[in-house]
Amino acid sequence: MKRVCTRQFRNLTRLRSFGEVREKISRSINHVCLSRRSLHGSACRLGELELTSVRYPHVQRGKYATLTEKDVDFFQKLLPQRVLQDPSELDGYNIDWMRTVRGNSQMVLRPKTTSEVAEILKYCNERHLAVVPQGGNTGLVGGSVPVFDEIVISTQLMNQIISLDEVSGIVVCQSGCILETLDNYLAERELMMPLDLGAKGSCHIGGNVSTNAGGLRLLRYGSLHGSVLGVEAVLASGEIVDCLSSLRKDNTGYDLKQLFIGSEGTLGMVTSVSILCPRRPKAVNVAFLGVENFEAALQTFQLCKGMLAEILSACEFMDQESMQCIQENLKLTNPIKSYPLYILIETSGSHGSHDEEKLNAFLEAAMGKGIVQDGTIAMDVTQRQNIWGLRERIAEGLLHDGYNYKYDISLPLPKLYEIVEDMRQRLGSKVTRVVSYGHLGDGNLHFNVTTPEYNKEVLGLIEPYIYEWTSQVRGSVSAEHGLGFKKRDCIRYSKEPNAVKMMVKMKKLFDPNGILNPYKTIPL
Amino acid sequence: MKRVCTRQFRNLTRLRSFGEVREKISRSINHVCLSRRSLHGSACRLGELELTSVRYPHVQRGKYATLTEKDVDFFQKLLPQRVLQDPSELDGYNIDWMRTVRGNSQMVLRPKTTSEVAEILKYCNERHLAVVPQGGNTGLVGGSVPVFDEIVISTQLMNQIISLDEVSGIVVCQSGCILETLDNYLAERELMMPLDLGAKGSCHIGGNVSTNAGGLRLLRYGSLHGSVLGVEAVLASGEIVDCLSSLRKDNTGYDLKQLFIGSEGTLGMVTSVSILCPRRPKAVNVAFLGVENFEAALQTFQLCKGMLAEILSACEFMDQESMQCIQENLKLTNPIKSYPLYILIETSGSHGSHDEEKLNAFLEAAMGKGIVQDGTIAMDVTQRQNIWGLRERIAEGLLHDGYNYKYDISLPLPKLYEIVEDMRQRLGSKVTRVVSYGHLGDGNLHFNVTTPEYNKEVLGLIEPYIYEWTSQVRGSVSAEHGLGFKKRDCIRYSKEPNAVKMMVKMKKLFDPNGILNPYKTIPL
Repeated sequence: MKRVCTRQFRNLTRLRSFGEVREKISRSINHVCLSRRSLHGSACRLGELELTSVRYPHVQRGKYATLTEKDVDFFQKLLPQRVLQDPSELDGYNIDWMRTVRGNSQMVLRPKTTSEVAEILKYCNERHLAVVPQGGNTGLVGGSVPVFDEIVISTQLMNQIISLDEVSGIVVCQSGCILETLDNYLAERELMMPLDLGAKGSCHIGGNVSTNAGGLRLLRYGSLHGSVLGVEAVLASGEIVDCLSSLRKDNTGYDLKQLFIGSEGTLGMVTSVSILCPRRPKAVNVAFLGVENFEAALQTFQLCKGMLAEILSACEFMDQESMQCIQENLKLTNPIKSYPLYILIETSGSHGSHDEEKLNAFLEAAMGKGIVQDGTIAMDVTQRQNIWGLRERIAEGLLHDGYNYKYDISLPLPKLYEIVEDMRQRLGSKVTRVVSYGHLGDGNLHFNVTTPEYNKEVLGLIEPYIYEWTSQVRGSVSAEHGLGFKKRDCIRYSKEPNAVKMMVKMKKLFDPNGILNPYKTIPL
Repeated sequence: MKRVCTRQFRNLTRLRSFGEVREKISRSINHVCLSRRSLHGSACRLGELELTSVRYPHVQRGKYATLTEKDVDFFQKLLPQRVLQDPSELDGYNIDWMRTVRGNSQMVLRPKTTSEVAEILKYCNERHLAVVPQGGNTGLVGGSVPVFDEIVISTQLMNQIISLDEVSGIVVCQSGCILETLDNYLAERELMMPLDLGAKGSCHIGGNVSTNAGGLRLLRYGSLHGSVLGVEAVLASGEIVDCLSSLRKDNTGYDLKQLFIGSEGTLGMVTSVSILCPRRPKAVNVAFLGVENFEAALQTFQLCKGMLAEILSACEFMDQESMQCIQENLKLTNPIKSYPLYILIETSGSHGSHDEEKLNAFLEAAMGKGIVQDGTIAMDVTQRQNIWGLRERIAEGLLHDGYNYKYDISLPLPKLYEIVEDMRQRLGSKVTRVVSYGHLGDGNLHFNVTTPEYNKEVLGLIEPYIYEWTSQVRGSVSAEHGLGFKKRDCIRYSKEPNAVKMMVKMKKLFDPNGILNPYKTIPL
């Protein structure tokens, strides 16, 4: 392999790659697509989607009470003008973003304060009324919409930033703050949110915490179990558990807040959070690389981990089928030639020229060794957003095919792409596409299959095969999306019986009447 | 203030500061001092220390069974040659490293496997025999030694490294592995443990996880809640909960492992852990700086956080009284002139000259602004160890005074030193010293008072005053040491009643007979 110096690489970039990029893919466009408002706008299509109770007939409604006039009166007095009951308004709260599940809730409550949430839950618990807490409703496993007629408690109006300590970088806010809004607020103070994901323009921080969202920069800033310093949550009983510490260290008793991180609103409803925010980097670089096979992708990851070290902030991958999907469905353009796999590398640092020197040395080494075949480096903010758009908009592109079978698995790195090739062979021409992309640095694969419409036979070919495959190599059947409604019964593929038994016991301890987000997360 | 360029600063260092350092303070010496072996060696002194049951007469023994011949037979058959009963051997397991509490256990068990631990606990649970899990016994709150006659289950022989994935940097090992041993093993593979603390030569990783140890580099690598990927633990019932995932992401159900992190062995005994290890830095720099007051210390922290950013790996402080303590009691030498406060800054990066450039720019700015008055930079590994020794050996130095009242609190940064000055005034000449040091970057103060011997009047002057003070500013009465036996009743100063109530319920759920490390962590 001919040694290609970085200068050439960069010139190549300028001359060939970005000249072709015509789309103005801005993140904001992406976010509008991801927001629930887009669902509201497309209400005319909603009638087509069958109810969850019809599509999943084996799931039985729990023995909960049903809403009476008296209940409605209570809530209307508690939350004047903040109780939604108009069917046209309810659709957006009953249907998930992917349009795969549809609940039949008759009422949405929009509290503004923790004590209002406490009043609601106390009442519902006494009345045995089931509820589903809902943030931005951008979840991918049906965890944030009702299954039957659960009352939706939306955090839409709980959007206050409570405090920011600029020295230590600790922000305290209500759970309904939108991730992007928080990040913009912090940007003005040279700080940033420690997580970022495609849905940032719609998702609520309370939902992020409740689902332990991972996202694009977990590689650098770690999981929410590390960066969330405090949580205030309301239990099913209406009791408020205030663990809203804004201290970096606190070892007094059990770390209860951890229980609310990732339990999908089944143990309590998160009302406020306290988060440790890193300094905003002064310099950001993004490179988009083409490689011949997954082995080369892994070598690229190892090389950049060593050479970019403390400035590496993302290492993402997508396959050619992902690229085809966004080219065909969203009319985006590949800035480089076609390769079986693409890698997106981002650096974030405090010193532009140091970072550039490190990145150049890495690219020179990667191309010199023949690991990376081609690539492009973003020269400005717009180009950075364009490259990120390629990766972030795949989820949106897939929806255009019709029905999307979505899997989010963790696997040992050497196995990460084997399952994709295996499934491609297994499904053959029965499906529109088999697409994979994800967080290479985290061993997290987003595996997707599409068909024109929901197809039981295809589903039967994918499941439980994919779960068994994952289980055999001790992977996780849900890396970051959670289990929600759709993956609840898959827990045993990644957790052994004693662990599940303890979870069931904890659910019963925290929510004896089972009113909090029933039919989700834990098989009871 | 005259602007002092970094070159001058460095020359100053070479000429004046390090010329005076004569001690060869190696970490290994430090660790021998901190290890339990040193307690074994000083057995002649042990007779002096009164039993915990005598010193704390208000604590009543629980209604547990007492050891019979039949029990001893059972354990000797289960663990041939691994049951200790000789009183001379038991002392080191009954007494804490600080010599402040003394249990009266008659038996130490030394299992090698998880299934042996399961057998032990199943038996003890059925017989209502209380146990205390013990790692390196380097804890500072009496959490790892018996209060009465609890059976000690030591992890000393559970010291196997199970696996290492060098690409993802994930190590899986038994809980009795010594932190330093693990770090040395990883060093050969260009990796490192994500935590470091003074006791690293003796402490066990299982103990670190069980106490959610913080240490010297939490600022950079975050808390164990983020870097521990998996835990295997044995419940009181003897059931094994295997959450020993070695995946970076796994959102299947509740994150049970979090419960064992920091619960001090009261919910289960940690038998194996899986930990995400960062790359070992290629370049490390350490600077030791003198500042005039705490305001300047905070300004230094803010400045280095901005200018050193991604390469900052520690920001520690110690006051002049700490320096006096190690000078008088350990004959260490201050490498710079006397200042009211000293700051230790460490950088860890992948590119020596980049890091040095950043550090020099920071020092130039700090001295130019008149924030930092004087300082020294370590020029080699020995000098680095010497500087770290100044900070790490304060705990050891304090023991030479006699009795050490030890506090480990988190406070909002602006309040961090106010409490020290307040207490110094309050205690006056009744005590030998009032010393403070800690993790400036984490808002974590180690506050210490010494007297020639245990003195109830002095204790009464410190407590509950210090806890009330901390509580008023929403600080934590235990930042990283845990509550153990000595701080258990202080939980209410940092946690509100609903949270404590939930903890009590969880304790009862996990350990209905209360056999696991009783009298610790949670007030029942």
